[in-house]
Amino acid sequence: MKPTTITAISTAPGIGGIAVIRVSGTDALEYSNAIFKAKTKSVTLLKQKAYTVSFGSILDKQKETIDDVLVTVFHAPHSFTGEDVVEISCHGSLFLQQKILQLLIEQGCVLAQPGEFTQRAFLNGKMDLSQAEAVADLIASNSTASHRMALNQMRGGFSSELMKLRTQLLNFVSLIELELDFNEEDVEFADRNKLKTLATDIEQLIARLSDSFQVGNALKNGIPVALVGETNVGKSTLLNLLLNEDKAIVSEIHGTTRDVIEDLVNIKGITFRFIDTAGIRDTKDKIESMGIERTYQKIEQASVILWIVDCTQLSEHMEWLTERIAMRAEGKKVILVFNKIDKIAEDEREVLDQLFQQFKGERIYISAKEKINTDGLENALVNAAQLPEINPGDVVVNNVRHYEALQNALTAIRRVISGIDNGITGDFLSQDIRECMHFLGEISGSISNDEILGNIFGKFCIGK
Amino acid sequence: MKPTTITAISTAPGIGGIAVIRVSGTDALEYSNAIFKAKTKSVTLLKQKAYTVSFGSILDKQKETIDDVLVTVFHAPHSFTGEDVVEISCHGSLFLQQKILQLLIEQGCVLAQPGEFTQRAFLNGKMDLSQAEAVADLIASNSTASHRMALNQMRGGFSSELMKLRTQLLNFVSLIELELDFNEEDVEFADRNKLKTLATDIEQLIARLSDSFQVGNALKNGIPVALVGETNVGKSTLLNLLLNEDKAIVSEIHGTTRDVIEDLVNIKGITFRFIDTAGIRDTKDKIESMGIERTYQKIEQASVILWIVDCTQLSEHMEWLTERIAMRAEGKKVILVFNKIDKIAEDEREVLDQLFQQFKGERIYISAKEKINTDGLENALVNAAQLPEINPGDVVVNNVRHYEALQNALTAIRRVISGIDNGITGDFLSQDIRECMHFLGEISGSISNDEILGNIFGKFCIGK
Repeated sequence: MKPTTITAISTAPGIGGIAVIRVSGTDALEYSNAIFKAKTKSVTLLKQKAYTVSFGSILDKQKETIDDVLVTVFHAPHSFTGEDVVEISCHGSLFLQQKILQLLIEQGCVLAQPGEFTQRAFLNGKMDLSQAEAVADLIASNSTASHRMALNQMRGGFSSELMKLRTQLLNFVSLIELELDFNEEDVEFADRNKLKTLATDIEQLIARLSDSFQVGNALKNGIPVALVGETNVGKSTLLNLLLNEDKAIVSEIHGTTRDVIEDLVNIKGITFRFIDTAGIRDTKDKIESMGIERTYQKIEQASVILWIVDCTQLSEHMEWLTERIAMRAEGKKVILVFNKIDKIAEDEREVLDQLFQQFKGERIYISAKEKINTDGLENALVNAAQLPEINPGDVVVNNVRHYEALQNALTAIRRVISGIDNGITGDFLSQDIRECMHFLGEISGSISNDEILGNIFGKFCIGK
Repeated sequence: MKPTTITAISTAPGIGGIAVIRVSGTDALEYSNAIFKAKTKSVTLLKQKAYTVSFGSILDKQKETIDDVLVTVFHAPHSFTGEDVVEISCHGSLFLQQKILQLLIEQGCVLAQPGEFTQRAFLNGKMDLSQAEAVADLIASNSTASHRMALNQMRGGFSSELMKLRTQLLNFVSLIELELDFNEEDVEFADRNKLKTLATDIEQLIARLSDSFQVGNALKNGIPVALVGETNVGKSTLLNLLLNEDKAIVSEIHGTTRDVIEDLVNIKGITFRFIDTAGIRDTKDKIESMGIERTYQKIEQASVILWIVDCTQLSEHMEWLTERIAMRAEGKKVILVFNKIDKIAEDEREVLDQLFQQFKGERIYISAKEKINTDGLENALVNAAQLPEINPGDVVVNNVRHYEALQNALTAIRRVISGIDNGITGDFLSQDIRECMHFLGEISGSISNDEILGNIFGKFCIGK
């Protein structure tokens, strides 16, 4: 079957000065040329050099002019998708964008699926799967760190290194499998010492990459911060304060790598994901207990906990609560936030401090309503984040799919190492190596299936 | 003073596959080249041919790669603005767009004002003022007719014709003013008969253009339809029905030619602007009376009136109301809409019809709530619109500024004609001709001032 020629609006949806419509496929030049009339009469897109721009008009079937446009031509394989590509830069009216798209479809183009341009780039060998995924991350990036991670990955990142190691594994496994053909003769083509050195190198690299996921994920999806406390201590007011004050609120980024992001806030360059929770209190009400159980689960998912206390309403259950929170918060940063500090006298603070003398973490005094010391709270959050800085070229895994593949590869390569140590037979060794190679291959897309691809590219925006 | 080099994001705001950042001015190539590193090492933007695209990376001051981009180069005067122009096509993340913009500004670029690219195109003689205005109209166009009007105007439209006539007027006025130098000698260099023929041609053209404004304005801004009736007859339900049913609702188009558009709906290719009004009833309440007075004013502004009657609640004031509406609706299309038709029996319709036998216009029976016969209502609206079709190349004025200038020019040219008929002296004749020329010049921008320009280009979107 002849592959289809696809088209889509590649710029952001809406009205702008200009918009760009992209066409990719074997017939991209022909279809585009059919609706294009160059200002310079001798020009036809079919004969234009690659990487050149032509000025002219888009005409409909009645030869009526639809718009004056600039058309850029790219020739396979030297284009984003690796196919012939045409980019039509038109005026940015919704009407015009739709009209030109319609004319292209009448010629024979098919409307591109989300991510189909990048998918074609992958299928045509222009990039591996992890690079393709990075394109979506790059488009969704909203901070220096998330942008840097995406760019590093798009430009090869760790996957090229992994692929080199995978090729070396392949060499070994071929030798080992060759041994099996001679199994009567007890030969050893594959040097077990060299194989162990390689396997150990791979194990260390994978473990390092795996470890980086916690940071990568926090940078990409925000550092999870749970707001906990009793009911009515001002959690929601505080949340609104953190979300609304002259910061970019990133919400509802549709069709990129995530479906809906809520309550993400960039504070001093770090993205936090704030998780509001139900108020905790000692209750026998069954439904309320379920809500509180969910709160505990959220505490476990968070890296940082903001424990909010109403200075004016110190509960008799404070000790009980301290215990409950401490139980769940092990290994996490807990910041004790005294809210409504404007409502109490200076000497009452001392009483407060004594009441919480068991608590060893950081404590902050604020008023969410009066916006007192929000800066102090933000600094405490940034300190609590404790993210290592990502430098250009740093290798950080930020994709759950990659993380899972790495974890699986790690298990397999560790089996390989212990197998060598225990002198297991070549057939078992070969099986473990192939399993490790399989999972490494999943990252770059050397091993993939339609379901995985559909899942990855379906999350792209249309036109990319 | 050296003119500044400006930059802006030209594509629609938001996240997309790609975004385009435009740079225009003397230093456009230099500033862009300073942050660009081509993939092919020998390439520098400073030496790239016009109309070519270069692939490479944007680097920040620390030489860190920010994004992989395509850069198109245009050389003055063969560009949109008439200046050197660079278009950077980057990945469509908000972060990247802002980052690249920031790097350009660090180089020395200035953020473009709304419409500044088009304004420069005008100032550099690439287009006249009416063509520049058409660019904004084109971007805001939302129907075949409004798009066609804008495109006709952008490609020269009526202004080029007017400018030719203006030049002929200039020739005459020069001759007349030459006569004044010889006023002792009673010579006549300017043939009064030929002048009158020209003036009559101009008068006819201007009158025709002026007349087209009603159509042009309706097409551009929507045909104004007032919904009137007593309180609680279902006006709002009907309005929602008209606005919500699987039609494109055009609302809040910021920064184009209009500030905010509300309740515009495209029905079968025609744009309607629905105007909700306060319910009319006979009242002595002073504040309510003021509301009703405004309703009458809206009736006067509308071309079509939907007079809505609740079948189940026939008011004793019906006769009074009929009179009131008829008084204001002279020369307009009135459609009598019987709402809640599902609530009455068949024989009650006859009673209704008799009650309104005085009313000679079209009547429609619907239920807004049950969505009965909305199609009939839409057809009635489309018929009532009675707009002539706009064909490619048709000359239609759709801009209030042009309309006012044409009206002023019309008054002046009529004075010229009657002046010739009455044999007035050359100095008065010359003054009237110059006035007509002045107003014609305002349309193309031959005559303009900063305030007018600011007013026109301030309504553009940024990046155009």
